[in-house]
Amino acid sequence: MAQKEHILIVGAGLCGSLLALRLAQRGYKISLVEKRPDLRKTDISAGRSINLALSDRGIRGLRLAGLEEKIQKLCIPMHGRMIHDKNENTFLSPYSGLEEEYINSISRGDLNALLLDEAEALSNVNIRFNQECIALDLDKPEAFFRDFTTKEEQKLTADVIIGTDGAGSVVRQSMMQDKDFLFSFSQDYLQHGYKELSFKPAKNGGYQVEKNALHIWPRGENMLIALPNLDGSFTVTLFLSYEKGLHNFKNLSSKEEIEAYFKEQFPDAYKLMPHLAEEFAENPVGPLGTVKCSPWTKNGKTLLMGDAAHAIVPFYGQGMNASFEDVAVLDQILDKNYSTWEQIFKAYEKARKKDTDAIADLAIDNFDEMKAHTAAPIFQEKRKLETAFEQNYPEQYASKYRLVTFREDIGYAEALKIGRTQDKAILKLLSAKNLDNKLSLQEKLNLVKTKTKNLLQDTGVVKQL
Amino acid sequence: MAQKEHILIVGAGLCGSLLALRLAQRGYKISLVEKRPDLRKTDISAGRSINLALSDRGIRGLRLAGLEEKIQKLCIPMHGRMIHDKNENTFLSPYSGLEEEYINSISRGDLNALLLDEAEALSNVNIRFNQECIALDLDKPEAFFRDFTTKEEQKLTADVIIGTDGAGSVVRQSMMQDKDFLFSFSQDYLQHGYKELSFKPAKNGGYQVEKNALHIWPRGENMLIALPNLDGSFTVTLFLSYEKGLHNFKNLSSKEEIEAYFKEQFPDAYKLMPHLAEEFAENPVGPLGTVKCSPWTKNGKTLLMGDAAHAIVPFYGQGMNASFEDVAVLDQILDKNYSTWEQIFKAYEKARKKDTDAIADLAIDNFDEMKAHTAAPIFQEKRKLETAFEQNYPEQYASKYRLVTFREDIGYAEALKIGRTQDKAILKLLSAKNLDNKLSLQEKLNLVKTKTKNLLQDTGVVKQL
Repeated sequence: MAQKEHILIVGAGLCGSLLALRLAQRGYKISLVEKRPDLRKTDISAGRSINLALSDRGIRGLRLAGLEEKIQKLCIPMHGRMIHDKNENTFLSPYSGLEEEYINSISRGDLNALLLDEAEALSNVNIRFNQECIALDLDKPEAFFRDFTTKEEQKLTADVIIGTDGAGSVVRQSMMQDKDFLFSFSQDYLQHGYKELSFKPAKNGGYQVEKNALHIWPRGENMLIALPNLDGSFTVTLFLSYEKGLHNFKNLSSKEEIEAYFKEQFPDAYKLMPHLAEEFAENPVGPLGTVKCSPWTKNGKTLLMGDAAHAIVPFYGQGMNASFEDVAVLDQILDKNYSTWEQIFKAYEKARKKDTDAIADLAIDNFDEMKAHTAAPIFQEKRKLETAFEQNYPEQYASKYRLVTFREDIGYAEALKIGRTQDKAILKLLSAKNLDNKLSLQEKLNLVKTKTKNLLQDTGVVKQL
Repeated sequence: MAQKEHILIVGAGLCGSLLALRLAQRGYKISLVEKRPDLRKTDISAGRSINLALSDRGIRGLRLAGLEEKIQKLCIPMHGRMIHDKNENTFLSPYSGLEEEYINSISRGDLNALLLDEAEALSNVNIRFNQECIALDLDKPEAFFRDFTTKEEQKLTADVIIGTDGAGSVVRQSMMQDKDFLFSFSQDYLQHGYKELSFKPAKNGGYQVEKNALHIWPRGENMLIALPNLDGSFTVTLFLSYEKGLHNFKNLSSKEEIEAYFKEQFPDAYKLMPHLAEEFAENPVGPLGTVKCSPWTKNGKTLLMGDAAHAIVPFYGQGMNASFEDVAVLDQILDKNYSTWEQIFKAYEKARKKDTDAIADLAIDNFDEMKAHTAAPIFQEKRKLETAFEQNYPEQYASKYRLVTFREDIGYAEALKIGRTQDKAILKLLSAKNLDNKLSLQEKLNLVKTKTKNLLQDTGVVKQL
């Protein structure tokens, strides 16, 4: 295939910007079109979370585009979960037994700006802002855009169109509406929503709580989390049921109710939030949804990537990472010298879909783990044991969290299969009191590995039947 | 709640017609509005299958409306699956060990006409045809209709609106488009489509193959089935992959290819289809999709029922039966004297949703069972054993098929849980050669029951973790 083909990318968020950069580096002519204004010139919240957790799979995509070093100064390492109980006690649960394995808090805006700068610097990239995609012809392909200011409409054509226009993708909607196209689709909302709040920087410009951790206040059905920002502040997110339970977004409305709820549930956080009631009133409640669909391409003319293809809930910190890994997987497929875009896009979906389905399911698992299990003694016991395994036998053991977050060499689907089975094995052994303290750590590890192997075989047998 | 409230039902197919009849019998004022012409006056194919399998859950709904006797003369009992192999051998696999448990082939058109006649005979039912629902206001509630002939538009209001407008429901689409409503939704298409064909009546007006059976030609990935009609004909349906495998809907196009395929795969059926190539060319390929969604009501003003709420693939013969059971479940809820429609609709969804989710999954299970397993020796061995259990110990054993089809006293979700576990238990015992012929039937049954119980407990334990 000639390297001068023209690719139209709809959506210049994190995924679209990195994709534009990488495909331009490969020699394609790129048009990158974005609905919103240029975030480097306007102070906009894209209606999405302010900071994110960047980890190995995301870094893989950035590395491919030559950005691994440049992003270092945007990153704040988080080595584990800092769990806060109701009595203001805290303890750190490390993400891995290995010091060099950690996740990073990063500003969505800063990272997106860097990606846009890098893409814009290439002569074969053309970026346009304030252009809302309003319709597509998937077969030609063509896309129609309306200018936010002038309201003028224009048609853009290209050899292929890639939709990286997020969870509410217009490109995906046009696939959904196409009567000639059997498009499987699902959107699933949790019964919880989220609201962003904040801790301000300390008076000396430092951090009011431990900087290098992801803070969690697990409270069974609901939870509060906090991630650090470079300026000393934290972005704090409340995950709360819309309608259920004693306290929910529907019934928490007066200043008094809100303050009483925080004071009771998150007393140490409450002390750091003198502006709580104002922020709570001003900031919207966002929904938490999962989107899956297939096929991602219609006839090799259009392709969905990133959240447009697989929006997930934020609880594994993998939304952005999965999108950047998408770019890396597509890049690998492009190396294979297929002769048509249809072959490329089908091979890409075949390689990728099972993994994005898996991370969607894992992200929902992790909501339960974060809001409830992190506070349960048996899960704390399990995490301690896993940390010990990883510290002493890093080659022999990787927890589910480590497999998902730090093992870019294996896919999410494999991580899910092994990780869930290991979890089940350890919990079964712990609840049957089979991991007696008379056993050495190596003996415990052997028991866990054997139990895991047996459970995996059982699953295999059941599948065959 | 006053019994004179006005209910607008959108869609006068099988579910909408029975619902209108039953709610009118309860005293409500009913407007039933249908997009298509009156099927009693026009010869239309609704784009749906011509005949259907009516079984106990469907009969429960019809009984409630006082129609159990009237439908008898429309029914052709089918006592089991008549399996046809490639060498034209056949054998009958009974649906149940009990003679009185069978399913019925019934004409969709005849049954719908009966339901419309019965509803129309009531003074508090108003039926309008040729009125396409084009939009809704879910909050008022109001629905807008366009007349097929005059193109005039009109608005109808009611106390509540119930959408029984099928798999492509406009009522559901308006929920999907409502930005203020967190509507979880999925549509999943199989890789297979279906095409309807036929066997004509014998020259003497009788049947060319066994009348009282559902005929199946299982061929691994694809299959042919046939259900009898009252006039001696059979409606024959080919389930075939769209694109995959040696033969598929994409590559079967010439008369020669079609005939060669049928001659090789379905030789006995082929002999009964002199008009095969013409029918194949004329009849469309239909998609096979599953729709799930939630919530079914927005604020107690609108409700989805039948295929609009839960469209399923046809392989368990439960689509119509589930829709009629919907009417029976809603009827039970109405007996409970809730004070608002919101309470009624929420209680209905709570009672019903788990079961319609289950039948959707069971229907997909059964596709695998019909197209492949029915031909496999171990599954035939399993069916023989289950039939013997049911004949000798009807109180002690019910197969998954019997639980789903003949046990209206338990829900689909329970049938799924018990049925799948039993299947797994028998297959494990058979493949481990544990059901030795030296054992008595009672001993075999005891082994199966113990194994099932253990597997169910295992699942329970895993869930707790």
